[in-house]
Amino acid sequence: MSSRKEILVFDNIPSLRSWRQQYIKQDKQVAFIPTMGSLHEGHLSLVKQGSQHCPIVVVSIFVNPAQFAPNEDLDKYPRTLSNDLELLRSLDCVDAVFLPKVEEIYPYGIPLDVEKQKGAFVEVRDKSHQMEGKSRPLFFRGVLTVVTKLFNIVQPNCVFFGQKDAQQCIVIRTLISDLHFPIEMHVGATGREYDGLAMSSRNKYLTSDQRNYATTLFKGLSAIKNEFDQGEKNREILLNKGYELIEKVTKEVMEKNLGFELKLDYLSLVDPRTLEELQEIEEEKGAILSG
Amino acid sequence: MSSRKEILVFDNIPSLRSWRQQYIKQDKQVAFIPTMGSLHEGHLSLVKQGSQHCPIVVVSIFVNPAQFAPNEDLDKYPRTLSNDLELLRSLDCVDAVFLPKVEEIYPYGIPLDVEKQKGAFVEVRDKSHQMEGKSRPLFFRGVLTVVTKLFNIVQPNCVFFGQKDAQQCIVIRTLISDLHFPIEMHVGATGREYDGLAMSSRNKYLTSDQRNYATTLFKGLSAIKNEFDQGEKNREILLNKGYELIEKVTKEVMEKNLGFELKLDYLSLVDPRTLEELQEIEEEKGAILSG
Repeated sequence: MSSRKEILVFDNIPSLRSWRQQYIKQDKQVAFIPTMGSLHEGHLSLVKQGSQHCPIVVVSIFVNPAQFAPNEDLDKYPRTLSNDLELLRSLDCVDAVFLPKVEEIYPYGIPLDVEKQKGAFVEVRDKSHQMEGKSRPLFFRGVLTVVTKLFNIVQPNCVFFGQKDAQQCIVIRTLISDLHFPIEMHVGATGREYDGLAMSSRNKYLTSDQRNYATTLFKGLSAIKNEFDQGEKNREILLNKGYELIEKVTKEVMEKNLGFELKLDYLSLVDPRTLEELQEIEEEKGAILSG
Repeated sequence: MSSRKEILVFDNIPSLRSWRQQYIKQDKQVAFIPTMGSLHEGHLSLVKQGSQHCPIVVVSIFVNPAQFAPNEDLDKYPRTLSNDLELLRSLDCVDAVFLPKVEEIYPYGIPLDVEKQKGAFVEVRDKSHQMEGKSRPLFFRGVLTVVTKLFNIVQPNCVFFGQKDAQQCIVIRTLISDLHFPIEMHVGATGREYDGLAMSSRNKYLTSDQRNYATTLFKGLSAIKNEFDQGEKNREILLNKGYELIEKVTKEVMEKNLGFELKLDYLSLVDPRTLEELQEIEEEKGAILSG
């Protein structure tokens, strides 16, 4: 008795392409939401937005090895496929899920040692090495390369990304406009838990103690935002509000001896267009605050 | 009384895109021949091949600044637009010519100093730094980036490149397959003058004395090919045949004091698949000899 839309699952490029072809001929617009799986409300909200813009919705689930550094969590990145498919079915608006194999996306292989990597790669110069790019230098090259491949395979009319990854959104926006992809980009607001923690597949790694302190960054960013709302526009003063709060909590965690430590990677306050660090926020231009 | 096909000329991306759109809906295949203009028989032969494969033929003419080094001939590269259009009209099979402006293709600008270049760039690792890439290190990044942009704008079903640029063909083939462009690539034989000189827009630079000696490379390559046809498979012996001939002519030019010198950049004998230099040619694999 279920009237749910059936989801087609494609695990290889030719089968997806040949299904996609019919909508090119019918001139039906396709929305595409690329994910690494382990879906949460943040993803689902992007999928719903996609279905409001286009009659056809495609979601990909692909844990992209090229965006992990050798010391990162590629192997233990959460993979929850049957649950993901169940969540997507419950939305009743997804037409197809694309689950490609690593060997098909990267025919030249993708060794974690980047020096050994062969084949085609895409970079955005001057925007990929700031902010998050400083601590994860090849992360964006991996993201941009896989996104380009997926765009060429799925040939979407619209794509949807989450604002949580602010710099990623800006870099992908540059990719689309500068390489002239015939694609419209949409950015969805960051999904957050009840206490402000940004939804993320990696939140599953957290113990309950860690989870309690995981909102520290959000609290630091909020403190800065408050200060800004009260009229402060100077970088040092604004960021110090965040540093103070985060340092205080970091100390607290250390003193309580909980078996883990908090470590602030970076706080960044940049021009939304150029990603250059700002000394002073101009009201009309705005700024991206992130950490 | 002329029954010639009229050629539409587009000088910006939106107008080309909107014209292109109708053939997407009609599912009519489009052949695309990217050029830097200054067309010769080599180009025209590719265009004719394109028209044999697809009902719609698009030619682009765009002198791509990103593939010139600061010391190269960007400014004096021959530009012969009205003659090019006349030649294309005479073929009676071209539907559209795309003449984009540098500012539209490279919205972030494209300073010759690569350190200052911003925006998205495409590279093929491990194939772009051999052979010609050794003497022109950023040449292929420039080619691959502009080709990606043009592919995304024109959205061709088939593309046509000349075999003269053997390494370029291999690198673009990797680009298409590895980034999963939905495009079929065709390679046309090298157009040659009566005496074997490969047709090239840059041949126009040659004085008549220079033109007389411009076939030296072809003669060297032919000597190697002859030796190979007689059963020789060893790299040193084969390449030496070429080096000897070219050295002899180089000396002759010097002694005649003609006001120019011949200079051999490189001779290369590589595996057609991996572009690795070969010590010994295997009959079934073949080899690319170039210089």
